[in-house]
Amino acid sequence: MDPNTSGLMQRLAEAGQSHLLQFWNDLSPEEQADMTLDLQGMDLQEINGFFKNAMETSSNSKHEKMDARMEPVPREVLGSVTRDRECLKNWEAAGLHCISQSKVAALLLAGGQGTRLGLSYPKGMYDVGLPSHKTLFQIQAERILKLQQLAEQKHKIKCCIPWYIMTSGRTMESTKEFFSRHNYFGLDKNNVVFFQQGMLPAMDYNGKIILESKGKLSMAPDGNGGLYRALGNQGITDDMQRRGIEYIHVYCVDNILVKVADPAFVGFCVQKEADCGAKVVEKTNPTEAVGVVCKVDGRYQVVEYSEITLATAEKRSADGRLMFNAGNVANHYFSFSFLRDVVQKHEPRLQHHVAQKKIPYVDVQGRLIKPDKPNGIKMEKFVFDIFQFAKTFVVYEVLREDEFSPLKNADTQEGKDTPTTARHALMSLHHRWVLNAGGHFIDENGRRVPAIPSLKDGTDLPIKCEISPLVSYGGEGLDELVKGREFHPTLMIDEHGVHELVKNGV
Amino acid sequence: MDPNTSGLMQRLAEAGQSHLLQFWNDLSPEEQADMTLDLQGMDLQEINGFFKNAMETSSNSKHEKMDARMEPVPREVLGSVTRDRECLKNWEAAGLHCISQSKVAALLLAGGQGTRLGLSYPKGMYDVGLPSHKTLFQIQAERILKLQQLAEQKHKIKCCIPWYIMTSGRTMESTKEFFSRHNYFGLDKNNVVFFQQGMLPAMDYNGKIILESKGKLSMAPDGNGGLYRALGNQGITDDMQRRGIEYIHVYCVDNILVKVADPAFVGFCVQKEADCGAKVVEKTNPTEAVGVVCKVDGRYQVVEYSEITLATAEKRSADGRLMFNAGNVANHYFSFSFLRDVVQKHEPRLQHHVAQKKIPYVDVQGRLIKPDKPNGIKMEKFVFDIFQFAKTFVVYEVLREDEFSPLKNADTQEGKDTPTTARHALMSLHHRWVLNAGGHFIDENGRRVPAIPSLKDGTDLPIKCEISPLVSYGGEGLDELVKGREFHPTLMIDEHGVHELVKNGV
Repeated sequence: MDPNTSGLMQRLAEAGQSHLLQFWNDLSPEEQADMTLDLQGMDLQEINGFFKNAMETSSNSKHEKMDARMEPVPREVLGSVTRDRECLKNWEAAGLHCISQSKVAALLLAGGQGTRLGLSYPKGMYDVGLPSHKTLFQIQAERILKLQQLAEQKHKIKCCIPWYIMTSGRTMESTKEFFSRHNYFGLDKNNVVFFQQGMLPAMDYNGKIILESKGKLSMAPDGNGGLYRALGNQGITDDMQRRGIEYIHVYCVDNILVKVADPAFVGFCVQKEADCGAKVVEKTNPTEAVGVVCKVDGRYQVVEYSEITLATAEKRSADGRLMFNAGNVANHYFSFSFLRDVVQKHEPRLQHHVAQKKIPYVDVQGRLIKPDKPNGIKMEKFVFDIFQFAKTFVVYEVLREDEFSPLKNADTQEGKDTPTTARHALMSLHHRWVLNAGGHFIDENGRRVPAIPSLKDGTDLPIKCEISPLVSYGGEGLDELVKGREFHPTLMIDEHGVHELVKNGV
Repeated sequence: MDPNTSGLMQRLAEAGQSHLLQFWNDLSPEEQADMTLDLQGMDLQEINGFFKNAMETSSNSKHEKMDARMEPVPREVLGSVTRDRECLKNWEAAGLHCISQSKVAALLLAGGQGTRLGLSYPKGMYDVGLPSHKTLFQIQAERILKLQQLAEQKHKIKCCIPWYIMTSGRTMESTKEFFSRHNYFGLDKNNVVFFQQGMLPAMDYNGKIILESKGKLSMAPDGNGGLYRALGNQGITDDMQRRGIEYIHVYCVDNILVKVADPAFVGFCVQKEADCGAKVVEKTNPTEAVGVVCKVDGRYQVVEYSEITLATAEKRSADGRLMFNAGNVANHYFSFSFLRDVVQKHEPRLQHHVAQKKIPYVDVQGRLIKPDKPNGIKMEKFVFDIFQFAKTFVVYEVLREDEFSPLKNADTQEGKDTPTTARHALMSLHHRWVLNAGGHFIDENGRRVPAIPSLKDGTDLPIKCEISPLVSYGGEGLDELVKGREFHPTLMIDEHGVHELVKNGV
């Protein structure tokens, strides 16, 4: 194919991107065809516009003083599992009622590529090394199954929680294949809906698209905020409407403790008649690298930790807590009408954020170069960019040790957010469930293990204990299985019963 | 020497410890002499009494329900750096005034052997790998020097903070030699007073003293609560009285952030007319392995984490905080008169705690055995065992990231409380001091580094920055050195000025 005849060269020239064809004559016919196809699918003028706006916003925001414009979340919009304990049962019942009416959907953001984790497959397919070797996808699927069952049992009505899964161009096929191969982990395949977020090219600081090889553009997903565009152009909001979905829980794939479609969170938001809600954990150390939910110029948003000064991060309220302590954990609630309005009206107003990156590129000789400092940008929208459009925004504070342990990095020395920390967080939670249900653990000498394990040899090894989501969604229903009983770890409780796994054995 | 003629055999028989001589005939004359000397210095009846009492207390306490008897620290005895900020300056001024009158002493607990850290020398001699390569002893000595200087400058009067250093039989000589070799780090050697805590033999579960070799008893320090006996029998309280000491700050060697003789803590305790005070950090996770300061049966004590149930550890106050959240950091305040009363009157009433341990021993054939499960006990007193005797007890809450980072374990994967965590904690604190004094850090490309560093590649590498205690005790006095300036890490600020250490160079 000749780029001239197709009008492609003309379009590239008009967009100032002619350099993309500099190696055209070195390409095989197949490579030429692939590249033509890639380029024909792109709106280059729109991409140039994204670049211009993103760079302007980025340089403007550096000059504004964010700190002076920030206000903390007021107490009246906050629900807290520690400070409003008397409301918890009520919120949970309200959420479970919504679920029983099939009005609640879960929406999983799974477009990332697990680069930091060093994966060549979608992060949801990762096994962090639990006794069961379940993947993140399976754990989440089983939580949905259990929650449907709990709602059905309580309300004597058949219901379902549709599961919308956003992948990206690079993870779509393998994700779908994985679910199919595992028979959707017991879910009805009609209620698992895959869709795909957009991709955008990486660009250098002059707005030129970067080539990752002679015939291939450097492409990356457009950030988890690409959700809103994808929801519209792939008919997902229409699908939600058809199903009568009214409340949506949006979350990221990497949190092993995530309470998918959390009835208490949904119930709280519904009772507050919120159109948008954010689940948060308390930030207790000023320099913890976590974004905080707050108001800026009177509108809610997540302020990233890199945007604030130490003085602001260290500000405290009269009660001694950090003033900006609502740590974002990428767990959000949207009413359907709000989400539809965002998709239909507000999305185009969202700006891309600029992330400076080290982007491998081919130089003029066609050699692949891996730069050792940032040489260009990726453009991303964030899922929380739409908080600003909410009319009634609420914040729901939960306990980190119960609900948040993201998987981001490979196991390395001093690692944070690794497979090991994720595995330990889940086993520690399930250990506490057993204790609170009246069970006990004993060591190899038959002595009861204290509830709080001591630090031995510098490692904090939790009791090995895993409870299938098919048995318990959030710690409920365990009394009859464990009360008054003593267990040797590893303890496994699943749909087949209560087992102790013998060391070096089964 | 014949054990018969010396009456030793008789004494051993009366104490049921005759087995200690089972290898007598295998020993060389020197070994026999050493063993005789060791045994002659021991009050075997007293040791048997300790064993009996400790075992009884230990088995009794297992049957009592601690949880129902615990009460949290009431607000009125609590001073908090986050909740009482308006008082801080005042407390600090009060403490500095006491220091200027030479009424404040620092007392260092340095008898431990750093076994978990894998050291063959006292922990205070350890270098955690700071840019300056200062040891823990040097850092603490320089803080004392600086504090004396601050008090002298403010009150125009010469003063000193005597430093009492408790070692053990195994660390005394090397500690003294280390201080002497380093010229007491600039302190007046007359104001550095070493003394030695007692040792006790390890015993099996039947109360038989364990042999670690044919001619040598297995001995260990008697716990940091051995302090009180040592203060009396080595004339330390007399020395304090001679010097006119009225207020004593007691702390452990392993906390790299320790504010030695902290004027704010001392001032708070003095203003409250307390006889005893404990510095604490807020415990935020129920299963964190830290003892908590609380009341039991109306008297203050530290309840160890292994003694409480999960239900108690998870209890929360109306404000959402953990009810038992006063995490002990082994930083205590005593009035001199209280300490003297403890030494003179109360100490004999303290019981030893039982710690089950794997204790290497020689079997009946004289072979050294290293057991793989606990085979005996060490007996220890704890420094906080005397809280119960206080008439006016207060609690002072500080920020963990500012004041507490103990060194306990060697660097290993997932390590807590390691040389790396200690080094990072100190550099992070000093980084914040620079930012709060108006300085900035820039990266290799000349861009300002955000105040909150991001997680890169799974490791949380802080900005490299170290400020000598000789320049700043607690962040004060840095404005003139850093305000409005930009620094490339590694930044070093010491008595010779402000330096940027170039990578791979000096």
